[in-house]
Amino acid sequence: MLELRLVQGSLLKKVLEAIRELVTDANFDCSGTGFSLQAMDSSHVALVALLLRAEGFEHYRCDRNLSMGMNLNNMAKMLRCAGNDDIITIKADDGSDTVTFMFESPKQDKIADFEMKLMDIDSEHLGIPDSEYQAIVRMPSAEFMRICKDLSSIGDTVVISVTKEGVKFSTSGEIGSANIVCRQNQTVDKPEEATLIEMQEPVSLTFALRYMNSFTKASSLSEQVTISLSSELPVVVEYKIAEMGYIRFYLAPKIEEDEEMKS
Amino acid sequence: MLELRLVQGSLLKKVLEAIRELVTDANFDCSGTGFSLQAMDSSHVALVALLLRAEGFEHYRCDRNLSMGMNLNNMAKMLRCAGNDDIITIKADDGSDTVTFMFESPKQDKIADFEMKLMDIDSEHLGIPDSEYQAIVRMPSAEFMRICKDLSSIGDTVVISVTKEGVKFSTSGEIGSANIVCRQNQTVDKPEEATLIEMQEPVSLTFALRYMNSFTKASSLSEQVTISLSSELPVVVEYKIAEMGYIRFYLAPKIEEDEEMKS
Amino acid sequence: MLELRLVQGSLLKKVLEAIRELVTDANFDCSGTGFSLQAMDSSHVALVALLLRAEGFEHYRCDRNLSMGMNLNNMAKMLRCAGNDDIITIKADDGSDTVTFMFESPKQDKIADFEMKLMDIDSEHLGIPDSEYQAIVRMPSAEFMRICKDLSSIGDTVVISVTKEGVKFSTSGEIGSANIVCRQNQTVDKPEEATLIEMQEPVSLTFALRYMNSFTKASSLSEQVTISLSSELPVVVEYKIAEMGYIRFYLAPKIEEDEEMKS
Repeated sequence: MLELRLVQGSLLKKVLEAIRELVTDANFDCSGTGFSLQAMDSSHVALVALLLRAEGFEHYRCDRNLSMGMNLNNMAKMLRCAGNDDIITIKADDGSDTVTFMFESPKQDKIADFEMKLMDIDSEHLGIPDSEYQAIVRMPSAEFMRICKDLSSIGDTVVISVTKEGVKFSTSGEIGSANIVCRQNQTVDKPEEATLIEMQEPVSLTFALRYMNSFTKASSLSEQVTISLSSELPVVVEYKIAEMGYIRFYLAPKIEEDEEMKS
Repeated sequence: MLELRLVQGSLLKKVLEAIRELVTDANFDCSGTGFSLQAMDSSHVALVALLLRAEGFEHYRCDRNLSMGMNLNNMAKMLRCAGNDDIITIKADDGSDTVTFMFESPKQDKIADFEMKLMDIDSEHLGIPDSEYQAIVRMPSAEFMRICKDLSSIGDTVVISVTKEGVKFSTSGEIGSANIVCRQNQTVDKPEEATLIEMQEPVSLTFALRYMNSFTKASSLSEQVTISLSSELPVVVEYKIAEMGYIRFYLAPKIEEDEEMKS
Repeated sequence: MLELRLVQGSLLKKVLEAIRELVTDANFDCSGTGFSLQAMDSSHVALVALLLRAEGFEHYRCDRNLSMGMNLNNMAKMLRCAGNDDIITIKADDGSDTVTFMFESPKQDKIADFEMKLMDIDSEHLGIPDSEYQAIVRMPSAEFMRICKDLSSIGDTVVISVTKEGVKFSTSGEIGSANIVCRQNQTVDKPEEATLIEMQEPVSLTFALRYMNSFTKASSLSEQVTISLSSELPVVVEYKIAEMGYIRFYLAPKIEEDEEMKS
């Protein structure tokens, strides 16, 4: 039997909105340590990894490991019926082919049960090794979202270049080109407005803006985003979920045509 | 001659928005006692009844009974041109084929006259007898609107079941099922947040959500909605209009296929 | 070399939004005295004239007169990437076929360069003589915008009639007719809410609402609009840009069919 009670139910609503553009069907994995998901996007280019640790739930009971296949659009439809202040409980009986989302209003005068059919989804869990990155940028998530959106009105790809002074986002397209530079900046009143750069060596990588824009749907989960870059590795775009875990998005860099020519 | 001056003109704007999704053309009936409308929706399934009593108008002159056929979309187009704080006066000469809506801004520095053509509409006025209901639920109109909208994302019909403890709204569809229970609740700080249940005997009836959703367009007129239910009667969904009257929507319950089989 | 630094960058964003519905491609003319534009709309019915005086810029360098052809939709795409509090600098090298828009965030921690290709546009500069007008109406720009929008839901043209008492906006269409009268009104608490009429003789002219609605896109630039009317001249709809200049729209009156018959 599974029973996970999350006082801040809006978190789960935001998680769903963050990933359902990228992933249609996915297995949620439940174990003694937490509630997690790992899924490729439908074009098998980007990877999403979600973790909500057991300690973050008010009540967490998971008698045995369970993998529940869900259609994320249907799940999002149901979660949208939860109020933003509602407590959400996820319930499933062993061997059942349904999962129940229970929404309790803060005053306990309204209680809703939404029961959703589960589905069988083939998936293999990728081991993601811990890596060293050439550069790690932490910056306000709203700023990163705005930059990705702005550059999309000019071009299709973004070059992210990190030096000690700052991080540069560049694009070009038919109507012209654009460069946006964010400087390292720790001397802000509010820590969530800081831009921090940890750099081993300069790095410059190109990514599809379409995916970056999808990742930024998670911006409501965290005031800051962490972007980890290395020439040989997929970028990791991480949004921490306060006291519970994270959503991480992985995306391989594009190989520039020029570089292909040279090699 | 007809001249009806309504200081709180936004009321008339809201009334139009509440009924124009359901009804396209209708006769507004004006008599010495008030301004009223009764109309079936275009598929002849639901009935709307509106009453604005003469006492609610700042000035009310109606020399003889008058029935004015109006296209509600055109009327809504004109009323949308009134500011929310405007005073609205409805004017018509005896035997005229037009009606005039006059909008005065609060500071009297802007005055607008909108003249609309009337139309001939066949209609018969149904006598609606006062009835005893098995159960009457009074609840916040915003809550009822939210529930109807939420259930529409899962199914097409809603089962409304009343017991002493509360009222349950249920639906089911392809992706799963949902139950929402609102408990009787009088101990709230604000009376408009109360949920009150007067029950003679338990009742459980099924309705098309499409119509319920249309009815909830009237939610801006009143903080509370009253739902009156009996097995043998159409449900009445009523929104009171402060100090003036009401909008009432009537809808026959659906006969479940199972019950049809049995009978 | 050209370098124009505008501290209140949002002004330039608003200017673009105000004219890009009317004009697709246009030459911006830069001289020692200011940054200006004059362009016909694509159907050659309305004329737009913009002036931003050199004194309004924090820094203004224009070594020689320059005319830069820009696609206003592309320019608007780029300016939309500037934050509302950003400082905008327009830069161009002599003989270059590109222009650069630089956006600096107020805290100087984010700097963006958007480079746009210029285009060759044939245009002739019309000399617009100063004229005496029969009537000049100054009124709140939001009020004028609302009136044009409201009348558009009834008809296609507006008759603007000025008398000493006020200005009347009239239209008629299939569903009926409308008259909106705004009275002269100087006794308001806030000067921006005043309606002032300077009249030499009464005037009544007819205009296409479609263009009037386009002109009102400039309402965000100024709390007041000035409408100058004479029987023999195009109307001038002017929005002042505080301490910098103006946007003026010119539109020829429609000749009523009745009058054509008579002549």
